[in-house]
Amino acid sequence: MQTRFVRTLTFLGVIAMSLVACDTPDTSSPPAAPAAVQSAAQPAPQPSVSLAGRVVVAHRGASGYLPEHTLPAKAMAYAMGADYVEQDVVMTKDDQLIVIHDTTLDRTTDVAEKFPGRARADGQHYAVDFTLEEILTLNVTEGFSVENGQKTLNYADRFPLGKSIFKVHTLAQEIELIQGLNHSTGKDIGIYPEIKSPAFHLSEGKDLGAAVLAVLKQYGYTGKTDKAFVQTFEFDELKRLHDEVMPALGVDLKLVQLLDGGDENLWMQTEDGVRQIAQYADGLGPEKSMIIDSESTPDNLRISQLVNYAHANGLQVHPYTFRADSDQVPAYATSFEHMLELFYVNAQVDGVFTDFTDRAVEFLRSH
Amino acid sequence: MQTRFVRTLTFLGVIAMSLVACDTPDTSSPPAAPAAVQSAAQPAPQPSVSLAGRVVVAHRGASGYLPEHTLPAKAMAYAMGADYVEQDVVMTKDDQLIVIHDTTLDRTTDVAEKFPGRARADGQHYAVDFTLEEILTLNVTEGFSVENGQKTLNYADRFPLGKSIFKVHTLAQEIELIQGLNHSTGKDIGIYPEIKSPAFHLSEGKDLGAAVLAVLKQYGYTGKTDKAFVQTFEFDELKRLHDEVMPALGVDLKLVQLLDGGDENLWMQTEDGVRQIAQYADGLGPEKSMIIDSESTPDNLRISQLVNYAHANGLQVHPYTFRADSDQVPAYATSFEHMLELFYVNAQVDGVFTDFTDRAVEFLRSH
Repeated sequence: MQTRFVRTLTFLGVIAMSLVACDTPDTSSPPAAPAAVQSAAQPAPQPSVSLAGRVVVAHRGASGYLPEHTLPAKAMAYAMGADYVEQDVVMTKDDQLIVIHDTTLDRTTDVAEKFPGRARADGQHYAVDFTLEEILTLNVTEGFSVENGQKTLNYADRFPLGKSIFKVHTLAQEIELIQGLNHSTGKDIGIYPEIKSPAFHLSEGKDLGAAVLAVLKQYGYTGKTDKAFVQTFEFDELKRLHDEVMPALGVDLKLVQLLDGGDENLWMQTEDGVRQIAQYADGLGPEKSMIIDSESTPDNLRISQLVNYAHANGLQVHPYTFRADSDQVPAYATSFEHMLELFYVNAQVDGVFTDFTDRAVEFLRSH
Repeated sequence: MQTRFVRTLTFLGVIAMSLVACDTPDTSSPPAAPAAVQSAAQPAPQPSVSLAGRVVVAHRGASGYLPEHTLPAKAMAYAMGADYVEQDVVMTKDDQLIVIHDTTLDRTTDVAEKFPGRARADGQHYAVDFTLEEILTLNVTEGFSVENGQKTLNYADRFPLGKSIFKVHTLAQEIELIQGLNHSTGKDIGIYPEIKSPAFHLSEGKDLGAAVLAVLKQYGYTGKTDKAFVQTFEFDELKRLHDEVMPALGVDLKLVQLLDGGDENLWMQTEDGVRQIAQYADGLGPEKSMIIDSESTPDNLRISQLVNYAHANGLQVHPYTFRADSDQVPAYATSFEHMLELFYVNAQVDGVFTDFTDRAVEFLRSH
């Protein structure tokens, strides 16, 4: 009991610090490194914490079981009880919006065989260099790497290479799948599109962010109460969406700032950085090691202050990516479900991006 | 208690009669009408009956929620926990096996718009008149009827017409989906292909039954312990599969005789008929009113002897089709789940074909 009392005091202290910090003027030149405080001792699990309202985001669909970003993978994730289904969005040569994770087609399609000679100097085939009609001729597969001329699955135990038939589809077609399922099931499952590499798209003369938001508006996603989050890694794009694109379209959607581990983005993990992001965003999407340090051990769980900073600034936190494959559970957790418990219960995240929607949904249902 | 005692005696009597009946010589000219005995009083529900081993067959996929026989509908049914996923199989002009319910393309595709002038005299477009390449240009939709030139959904509250993108696929592609999911999930979900209109196909010069079984063999379905049932409505085809096609291929799969309401097939519902079928088949697939009379009322549930006849002859019984749409639950049941209880518990069926796999799975899990 004394431990819990001390922890409660510590927690209240952090809240108080955060509230005080809110009054500090913004700095336009953020610090170069995160100042996240980490707890030295692992708190015991807190199963009494209510998990009501916590969400599961189907990362690229039920991508642990079917090739990512295919309609069958989306239907499967929907059936598994996802609260949101994620769409990564990229633009084609003819300005069509397609749902695919990479700006290149190489990892998940047979583009190299079907379109020889169409790669850029880096050997990659870019979606922006192909028309939608060309892209629809490709077969989509589970993600692979080529080693010594052989294709090898990136996750060995997932859906086998080259089996069945999967195709690329458009953002509109995916929204129509989700909305059609909402109609036939009576549920209200949300979408979670990402503006992929907006600066790259702009350099190619394509305003991906504006095009995605226009489609969302067309399908009725216009306000913060609609079941949609729009995410991007690029802070400049987040600001542009907030300050220019959304006002021009007359919409006001929930925005999520994604956080990668790049040195130039370390400021996003600081208290000042989070406060700055909160001027534009409604949520943070950090890589999960930014919340629980990868070097944590079962006896020494190192939880950062990032969630506290976010909550103090009214931001939800949806870390990525929770995978149950055999080598994807960090050493500090005994199982995939234990990892979920550490994040939902101990670290108090609001949702997770996971390739294994079924198991995260089951975890929330049973807690 | 007395009622239960009487019922038990009655049940034992039926079993005894069935066992005696087994010794009766077969008649090659079956009686013209079913002699099924019907109970006059509705037995009370028997929730203590074990439902272990009872199965759920996803009828055309998760067809209550997504367009039937599409890969997203199959992935959804798989995620919902179906034990078997059904495939209706039809042959194309170029001898490809496609998964589609009707021998015609009109109810579930835009063939009428895409291929004007290709209908037969009856106004219908037959799959057997089109190549696979042609059929792949079609968009698949929720089933509809055309009234006054307007397309209307056959089930009003299902997936909306013309939304998203769905395509026809081959039997091999569907088997690869199920087997790929079995690999990625670690489950062992079965297939349940139907030889559609085999006499029609033979009249078109196509041996559909042999072609389907050859594909099944290619994918490892060869014996009765493999998770596959092969079903057909035509008794002549059932016999031919059993006596000629399977021996020629060196396979011995589980066969299911489907029962429709046609006058010429009423013999199949008789005790002698069931015994005759059992010489070739492992299961019966009757329309569900053959087990519980549609004219039943809550106070007078009329259960036929068909399940008793089948079980006495070693046949499993998988009636069709269990639908939860508002007008699809018979008046004798208070709800879709009550209907399931009457069939699984009172009538003792071994499985059901349902458009709503999720609800049947949940029913079995909670009983």
